[in-house]
Amino acid sequence: MSVITIERKVLEKNDQVAGRNRALFQERGIFALNFVSSPGAGKTSILEKTFQVLQGSMRMAVIEGDVQTDLDAQRVARYGVPVIQIVTLGGCHLDAPLVQDAMTNLDLSKVDLLFIENVGNLVCPANYDLGEALKVVILSTTEGDDKPLKYPGMFLNSSVLIINKTDLVPYVKCDMNVLRGNALRINPSLKVFEMSCFTGDGIQEWCDWLKRKGAPEQ
Amino acid sequence: MSVITIERKVLEKNDQVAGRNRALFQERGIFALNFVSSPGAGKTSILEKTFQVLQGSMRMAVIEGDVQTDLDAQRVARYGVPVIQIVTLGGCHLDAPLVQDAMTNLDLSKVDLLFIENVGNLVCPANYDLGEALKVVILSTTEGDDKPLKYPGMFLNSSVLIINKTDLVPYVKCDMNVLRGNALRINPSLKVFEMSCFTGDGIQEWCDWLKRKGAPEQ
Repeated sequence: MSVITIERKVLEKNDQVAGRNRALFQERGIFALNFVSSPGAGKTSILEKTFQVLQGSMRMAVIEGDVQTDLDAQRVARYGVPVIQIVTLGGCHLDAPLVQDAMTNLDLSKVDLLFIENVGNLVCPANYDLGEALKVVILSTTEGDDKPLKYPGMFLNSSVLIINKTDLVPYVKCDMNVLRGNALRINPSLKVFEMSCFTGDGIQEWCDWLKRKGAPEQ
Repeated sequence: MSVITIERKVLEKNDQVAGRNRALFQERGIFALNFVSSPGAGKTSILEKTFQVLQGSMRMAVIEGDVQTDLDAQRVARYGVPVIQIVTLGGCHLDAPLVQDAMTNLDLSKVDLLFIENVGNLVCPANYDLGEALKVVILSTTEGDDKPLKYPGMFLNSSVLIINKTDLVPYVKCDMNVLRGNALRINPSLKVFEMSCFTGDGIQEWCDWLKRKGAPEQ
């Protein structure tokens, strides 16, 4: 029995549970997003800005994934949004069974939008379906415009790209056109948002899109 | 046979090869550094600045690890430094056998300093000894001052921390004292450098340290 066989079995098991998570989300009318990025690209900051805009009009909840600490869950909790923290204790990604367990602690009848904030890692989470409607990859301009080419898996498996920290473009080596071109070269169907949590640019457009996607069906 | 057993065996095999790599480096008088960080923290930029200062006084070589592309190897090659590219094709870290293979393509008799640039990933490379003298973790100020607490494994297993992009501190939420304090709380024996590849701050101090560490024994 080889390591590769074991890995395939792990992924098969994951995908089975992800399928059950997805069915549950659909049944409950929950729009679930899997937020993936490098450490520090701004996943939690984007959530905070999203809460500020959508609170009152959408019922939101968060599953936080971190290698260690509940710092992000504390940030989210300040907005009164229900949050469940998963600490992976060194694990480099969330998997579907972890999300399934976390959901047992959420009242799903009161959720329109579920944000799953993955571990900060631009490689491993690409391979693990959690049952989400779509993956949102967040890339900070400070990481450089070559990253979609260097970490293609994540951009291939995501449906949405948020280019964050656009306010820092004047100070870093990042050509927005090159970045966008590189991302679309890897995945031409990516929906791209440009955003700055510092200036607020792009937040409203993103929230309008979320509102359309996550609106309860009539 | 469980997945955990398999993983332990993989790590044991890795450590055996890492031991052989380490013995070879010592025998040849090579000071080998394993550069680890999130994507875009500045590993390659620091190498470029290091070449500019140390070229002529130290004989350097690079093993580049990337999920995909040889973009970083091309950047390094411009400085006339021998470079071997490892493309992991999705793999989230380098391991000791990959480095062992790469070395067969380097003339080790002409190397004082060997830089091994790992895959951009603040989680997985922490667990894989490559045979290096020490791990150098690079953290960009743009990632935020909480990262040592959230990704403790990498800071625990590293001997040196380079806080990079200090020129961006005025524009981002990063308190240098908090960052340094968090890192030293995880690993009090970390040697810390502060650096900006944009202004050049801290490069000379880093290179002086490298020169002392990597000088051929008399």
